[in-house]
Amino acid sequence: MSRSLQHPTRDQIDLPMVLDCLSDPTRLAIVYTLAQHERAATELCCGDFNALSGKSNLAYHFAKLRESGLMLTRIVGTNRLMKLRREDLDARFPGLLDAVIKSAARDAKRLQIPDVETVGAG
Amino acid sequence: MSRSLQHPTRDQIDLPMVLDCLSDPTRLAIVYTLAQHERAATELCCGDFNALSGKSNLAYHFAKLRESGLMLTRIVGTNRLMKLRREDLDARFPGLLDAVIKSAARDAKRLQIPDVETVGAG
Repeated sequence: MSRSLQHPTRDQIDLPMVLDCLSDPTRLAIVYTLAQHERAATELCCGDFNALSGKSNLAYHFAKLRESGLMLTRIVGTNRLMKLRREDLDARFPGLLDAVIKSAARDAKRLQIPDVETVGAG
Repeated sequence: MSRSLQHPTRDQIDLPMVLDCLSDPTRLAIVYTLAQHERAATELCCGDFNALSGKSNLAYHFAKLRESGLMLTRIVGTNRLMKLRREDLDARFPGLLDAVIKSAARDAKRLQIPDVETVGAG
């Protein structure tokens, strides 16, 4: 049996809530990491982010990202698989996600975003 | 004699702080309004925003916008003249300000951003 988690609809995605969600460095790093895996259409699981923070702290940030409409999470067995809501975000706020990801990439050192290779390697 | 207010340098402008600053609907509306007056190279003064909120609430938001590096404020006599830090923001985070302003424009009704004509008319 599969349990599904609550996500806002595309129309419910709210600009101030999205910006607030992105204003946290750990969540920025999560979004940045998910973006790096988009081209391969890979979903990531919780363990892929262990380099970013502790488990319970990450769980809190994953929930915030899902509730604000930035991330899609599905439960498969005991895993949670996550990816960016690229299509919904680009439809609601064209160019915003890309601009944020590019800005985060420029400031990766300052934001202490680990190399994506490190993150996915665990 | 002129008194000058403290602003972060271009390099000090911080992505999480900028996103946090923009995550408030009143500040989004202020930024949106300033953007509408950019082409005319007009600075706006406090009174131009009276349609958005009460005076002391606005003063708080103006300070947040200045401290996060989104806005430049100069004091002329008893007036404070304000404009976006377009050049600095575009240099630090290319495309971000425009994406946020376009997104705010799309959701203007939902965000209860008044028509710019109304704002500037007071």
